[in-house]
Amino acid sequence: MLPNWILEESVRRALAEDVGTGDLTTNSLVPVGARAEAVIYSKGAGVLAGLPVAARVFHMLDARIKVEEHISEGDLLKPGSIIARVEGPARGVLTGERTALNFLQRLSGIATATRQLVESIAGTRARLVDTRKTTPGLRALEKYAVRTGGGYNHRIGLYDGILIKDNHIKVAGGITRAISQARAAVPYIVKIEIEVESLEQLEEALAAGADLIMLDNMPPPLLRKAVALTGGRVPLEASGGITAGRIREVAETGVDFISVGAITHSAPALDISMDVGEIKKSFRESG
Amino acid sequence: MLPNWILEESVRRALAEDVGTGDLTTNSLVPVGARAEAVIYSKGAGVLAGLPVAARVFHMLDARIKVEEHISEGDLLKPGSIIARVEGPARGVLTGERTALNFLQRLSGIATATRQLVESIAGTRARLVDTRKTTPGLRALEKYAVRTGGGYNHRIGLYDGILIKDNHIKVAGGITRAISQARAAVPYIVKIEIEVESLEQLEEALAAGADLIMLDNMPPPLLRKAVALTGGRVPLEASGGITAGRIREVAETGVDFISVGAITHSAPALDISMDVGEIKKSFRESG
Amino acid sequence: MLPNWILEESVRRALAEDVGTGDLTTNSLVPVGARAEAVIYSKGAGVLAGLPVAARVFHMLDARIKVEEHISEGDLLKPGSIIARVEGPARGVLTGERTALNFLQRLSGIATATRQLVESIAGTRARLVDTRKTTPGLRALEKYAVRTGGGYNHRIGLYDGILIKDNHIKVAGGITRAISQARAAVPYIVKIEIEVESLEQLEEALAAGADLIMLDNMPPPLLRKAVALTGGRVPLEASGGITAGRIREVAETGVDFISVGAITHSAPALDISMDVGEIKKSFRESG
Amino acid sequence: MLPNWILEESVRRALAEDVGTGDLTTNSLVPVGARAEAVIYSKGAGVLAGLPVAARVFHMLDARIKVEEHISEGDLLKPGSIIARVEGPARGVLTGERTALNFLQRLSGIATATRQLVESIAGTRARLVDTRKTTPGLRALEKYAVRTGGGYNHRIGLYDGILIKDNHIKVAGGITRAISQARAAVPYIVKIEIEVESLEQLEEALAAGADLIMLDNMPPPLLRKAVALTGGRVPLEASGGITAGRIREVAETGVDFISVGAITHSAPALDISMDVGEIKKSFRESG
Amino acid sequence: MLPNWILEESVRRALAEDVGTGDLTTNSLVPVGARAEAVIYSKGAGVLAGLPVAARVFHMLDARIKVEEHISEGDLLKPGSIIARVEGPARGVLTGERTALNFLQRLSGIATATRQLVESIAGTRARLVDTRKTTPGLRALEKYAVRTGGGYNHRIGLYDGILIKDNHIKVAGGITRAISQARAAVPYIVKIEIEVESLEQLEEALAAGADLIMLDNMPPPLLRKAVALTGGRVPLEASGGITAGRIREVAETGVDFISVGAITHSAPALDISMDVGEIKKSFRESG
Amino acid sequence: MLPNWILEESVRRALAEDVGTGDLTTNSLVPVGARAEAVIYSKGAGVLAGLPVAARVFHMLDARIKVEEHISEGDLLKPGSIIARVEGPARGVLTGERTALNFLQRLSGIATATRQLVESIAGTRARLVDTRKTTPGLRALEKYAVRTGGGYNHRIGLYDGILIKDNHIKVAGGITRAISQARAAVPYIVKIEIEVESLEQLEEALAAGADLIMLDNMPPPLLRKAVALTGGRVPLEASGGITAGRIREVAETGVDFISVGAITHSAPALDISMDVGEIKKSFRESG
Repeated sequence: MLPNWILEESVRRALAEDVGTGDLTTNSLVPVGARAEAVIYSKGAGVLAGLPVAARVFHMLDARIKVEEHISEGDLLKPGSIIARVEGPARGVLTGERTALNFLQRLSGIATATRQLVESIAGTRARLVDTRKTTPGLRALEKYAVRTGGGYNHRIGLYDGILIKDNHIKVAGGITRAISQARAAVPYIVKIEIEVESLEQLEEALAAGADLIMLDNMPPPLLRKAVALTGGRVPLEASGGITAGRIREVAETGVDFISVGAITHSAPALDISMDVGEIKKSFRESG
Repeated sequence: MLPNWILEESVRRALAEDVGTGDLTTNSLVPVGARAEAVIYSKGAGVLAGLPVAARVFHMLDARIKVEEHISEGDLLKPGSIIARVEGPARGVLTGERTALNFLQRLSGIATATRQLVESIAGTRARLVDTRKTTPGLRALEKYAVRTGGGYNHRIGLYDGILIKDNHIKVAGGITRAISQARAAVPYIVKIEIEVESLEQLEEALAAGADLIMLDNMPPPLLRKAVALTGGRVPLEASGGITAGRIREVAETGVDFISVGAITHSAPALDISMDVGEIKKSFRESG
Repeated sequence: MLPNWILEESVRRALAEDVGTGDLTTNSLVPVGARAEAVIYSKGAGVLAGLPVAARVFHMLDARIKVEEHISEGDLLKPGSIIARVEGPARGVLTGERTALNFLQRLSGIATATRQLVESIAGTRARLVDTRKTTPGLRALEKYAVRTGGGYNHRIGLYDGILIKDNHIKVAGGITRAISQARAAVPYIVKIEIEVESLEQLEEALAAGADLIMLDNMPPPLLRKAVALTGGRVPLEASGGITAGRIREVAETGVDFISVGAITHSAPALDISMDVGEIKKSFRESG
Repeated sequence: MLPNWILEESVRRALAEDVGTGDLTTNSLVPVGARAEAVIYSKGAGVLAGLPVAARVFHMLDARIKVEEHISEGDLLKPGSIIARVEGPARGVLTGERTALNFLQRLSGIATATRQLVESIAGTRARLVDTRKTTPGLRALEKYAVRTGGGYNHRIGLYDGILIKDNHIKVAGGITRAISQARAAVPYIVKIEIEVESLEQLEEALAAGADLIMLDNMPPPLLRKAVALTGGRVPLEASGGITAGRIREVAETGVDFISVGAITHSAPALDISMDVGEIKKSFRESG
Repeated sequence: MLPNWILEESVRRALAEDVGTGDLTTNSLVPVGARAEAVIYSKGAGVLAGLPVAARVFHMLDARIKVEEHISEGDLLKPGSIIARVEGPARGVLTGERTALNFLQRLSGIATATRQLVESIAGTRARLVDTRKTTPGLRALEKYAVRTGGGYNHRIGLYDGILIKDNHIKVAGGITRAISQARAAVPYIVKIEIEVESLEQLEEALAAGADLIMLDNMPPPLLRKAVALTGGRVPLEASGGITAGRIREVAETGVDFISVGAITHSAPALDISMDVGEIKKSFRESG
Repeated sequence: MLPNWILEESVRRALAEDVGTGDLTTNSLVPVGARAEAVIYSKGAGVLAGLPVAARVFHMLDARIKVEEHISEGDLLKPGSIIARVEGPARGVLTGERTALNFLQRLSGIATATRQLVESIAGTRARLVDTRKTTPGLRALEKYAVRTGGGYNHRIGLYDGILIKDNHIKVAGGITRAISQARAAVPYIVKIEIEVESLEQLEEALAAGADLIMLDNMPPPLLRKAVALTGGRVPLEASGGITAGRIREVAETGVDFISVGAITHSAPALDISMDVGEIKKSFRESG
């Protein structure tokens, strides 16, 4: 699901910053020809995301390392779940361990946080969407982790969707003018979403032809009125300060989307480890 | 404290992924000549880190934007604290907002988590150090945030320090041989740290001349014995599963360093916002 | 309108390929301290696009070169129109000439071809949009030239819009299933456009809730029926083999958009030249 | 004929700008394990150029895609000519289609325009050469297309040949001084070409020892006199405003080279398409 | 021993600067299908370093070229020693020759210069270490060549070790304060080395707890006193103006390390050549 | 004389490899606001080359550092000659020292070695030219140093000149066929040089119309015969094993060019140092 070159560039950057000019410890102690077998497993409970990235880490270090998947992306992990088996030249296996785990832990952390909220709103019409509050440099990967966790992606960046916020409204001179100016500049190819803070603004946005409306920081009763007022004409997105404790209540108001920044910016890492078995010192291979 | 080109490359990558081919909303609604004034402020309590990165975001979008610092890196933030004032061409101010905040929120989150633990161990001889469990691609920035929060950096990557772990020990054929092999390969320029799991291993490591010893997952009573046994000959680092609740107890055992991965891999973002004041549509500037 | 780093990277690449390790002729014959004044002017008639790119070429060679704009982006050029005056160190002015003109000629060529079609359909409801048939590596710039010429941009790439073509429909098992699968995967954030080849397909697409419908290679009478059948429910885009000679007829069928690949893939360059006046050999400047 | 890394970098850039963070349509509708077979064919008549570039597009997306060449670079295409057969994982085939065709269409367009002029001057001693009027960022590929079309390359950039133009002559203080200064700076390794506008200038250039002389914007009768005057001492290049209609007349004057910018800057794309056959949904492959 | 991506990036840059847009000579004269066999051999005596880099040069040009190693890295070369046999498509073999040899000659030159000094001090306790006086852009490779020649690496750069020089001492206000400030900033993870110029400074540095001490430009009798005074408490490094003629005398003073910049900044290239045997013009291969 | 972006990229790479994530020593000991004044001076005798590169090193670290040139590129240096004065924020001055000197020492070493040979052949018609035997990644800079030392550049790489060597001759089937094949492929734009080893080959090359002829490894008496035989028809280049001791004798044979690889591949660094004066701890500057 992730383009080849995004994977490659992300992994190369991560390895360059960790390994730099070489792994002093492994190069000092592990013979070139030694082989290792290792198991990546979960110490916590959650959702797996990032295994293809971790596999790429090992492959970029040494194309001969094999990563055999035991569990698929998006599957549930319990403490002790075996995720994958890694086998090949021991230097690459040991040198890649931390970088591979750093990707896995972060992406699985996001998928796990996403899945928890998705389950909280199960049975409602609401879908969980992410925001642009991602770690700088990792957006494509983090948005992939959200999808893997069962969430949906909002726009990727400023270039693939229009979201008119209060400041834009003020500059444009009101909601109606903002929508019509945006429509004139970027006709019908891109959806125009606008942020509203009251039912009056919602009515104006509906009348002005917004494609999507974000209800900013509205309490559930107000959200419910907004849903009623809109009557299904356009999808509604609830946004702002929505915590795990409140999300079900928000979902039950009938909104179509709930966006939560915390699933990317504050998801704790999922605890994932690698266990290296016996390392065999074999003879140096030719080649 | 961060080299120029690391700042520049990190910011360029972050902007490229967020702004891409252009900010559709701002370019549709905000005139080229308009000017904006904005205030970056904290909504939570914590430690500021990342303001020079945020400033660079705005400068890379438009060199005419001014960022005036109200609080210094490492200072305490309370809800409502004004961090900086941003002023200049409105397009750049609005387009840069999210990327600037993403850096600030993550780095301040790390500084805040660091400070909390640093304060927990105040008065002991222990110092808090970070690990290599950082977000892929952001290590230099995250290690800077740890320093800003009052912590210390462990090695940056695999290239600037030796840390002999259990797998390396097994390959080398024991602690003594591992240390002497590493010493032979990388004589005295780099410190050699080794991970031990028992007092027996500790004794062997001391005898073998380790420069630093990591006590892996030892409970406080054992740590205390390790400190006594070592008698100040080399610094000791406690590591493994040390939570906020347990860190004081660990620090009081007399160890020199405590390393905690969670300050980088699981620190929640600090809540920081930008408030844009009136946007003035001025005439288009030449140039 | 173009992000800073896209400009910078495009210009750097263009200069690197043209100037390489240095301009042998200019470095041999023009003293370091000489200054030149030059005029960029049009030899053909058309629409100006790309002046900020050309200016960046000179600035990247020598930050002291001044480029004074005489005509604005999007303005009409007649044979002889003065576009800009370039003044500064002679080496940079001469070395940058060809690269600056290559950008200007291509982008103005696209803006000119766009404007011609835009004028052909003036007075109808149809708007001209571009396609992904752009020169590899220049998409952002070429799409900017289309906007400058009065056209509109369709999606930028495969990542910011959904366009379901016949192959996708076949794999999905029909129009209805294709649209509902796409909707399920990428809910309401991105518009879903689908390509249809008959009125039956159009009806199915309308019923299935497409946001935009592309009418592929339909002759004007059929387009007219499609417009009638749709009744304004969603915007319609005519596409496929639409030439300058036929575009008015297509526009008069009532479609909302007409996409034409030729404005980017086959626009001839607009003939633009630079005339260098007297070059003054001054003394070498310090610095 | 094109170095590996130029191909790779050009293709990577093109894919990055088109596919970005992922092909939303294909990823939504085409199963991971599906396989497709497609045929690339010509809809117009012309000369094939760029197939290795197109093949690289598919290989960079998915190394398992096979591209089987049916016609060789430089061969003639008629409407309906099968160029290549593409077979492999369906996602890669569909995602790469447009980028592969964009390269093929542009490069074949250039080869076709080149071949037309080459044929116009067949039987004369004149050879067609290109200029530096290429699309920024694509020079190596476009010069390759010129060679493929039967033309010859002039210098690649400012770094691999000396071409003294009127401005350089003015700064140097005349043709003789310009040539001798250039000769002194860059002795005999690089040929020195100079642009002349009259027979007097031609005589001076010959006397001063130019290696090549460009006859700028001379009408055929004057070209003929220049050829006679030169008497084969150095090759002569006719340049400036030479159209398809006039090129034969120019070639018959006896000049050695005719340079034409339009073969690169204004060649229309050759119409080339891809036809995807049945897509088979197979089971997901391990991998 | 060298990370994959460092090899790859160094080789790519070297090939790009040498081959650029293509090898005009080889492409003109050697058929695509021709195959060549060549032998890389030494014309001088020395130590081999850089064969994996040379092999990568050929592989990056054409993955089908085989490089068969006859002598291992670090082995001695005599005039006439066969280093490797290169076999494969003739274009790649000829195009890569110079770049491959440039790497081999420089790295073997450094390994050779290193080995000579290492042998000069054989039997003493001193070890030869390198400095940061390396060719810009080649540090990782040059430090690898030093190791291959039997030397040891000092710190790689400014980021992985502390070396307090006279200017730092002056700013800090003396040796004791400099060491304690450095210790406070970067506690025990990194060794702190300090440069001293007299026995008084040495005593102060020892008292202040330096981990390593560099004795700057001290004549052998003074070095001997420094060794006695230190009594093995910390390792001592002699540095400054140490030539081949003097190094043995320095080593015999009992210092632990001797650093010599000349092994990297002034090592002459080792004379290594490639001899191409018969080139067979075979038929063009498919693929 | 060096394009901006080559300077910038070379310096950025050099700084990144030396400074990495930060200068631990300077950042620990030198306050942010401190200012330093330093003098760059020569400890050996030679020719200055690379000062603009060194200046760029400091500017890239801190744009506020001023580098005031005392001696110009290409001027003679004696032991003690002051080259430049560097003044500005102390951190940047100290952090940049080594990288700036590494460039200066290597480039001045090459210019010095070049000048020595240039002087050895003064009064003859021969000119000294360089080869492609340069340090990988530094070709443009090293060729600049050769020019600065009074030498001339041969072709920059494989792409800007044709040099037919023995292997090419064998593949082509003889000198005459090789020259005519090359001429057909790359008509008159690029000079064709061919390597000959005997007077018979020389005669054939002259008859076949070579533009330049390289006399490979010929002893002076044979060179003299070659010069006589050629009679000034084309320039002749002596090449192969020409040392400082033999170069005058070679030059006196009447050849036009003498190429020597050692001026780039084996030039020892020129000894250049930086002396830092008092460092003033001022107050932290705003900004």
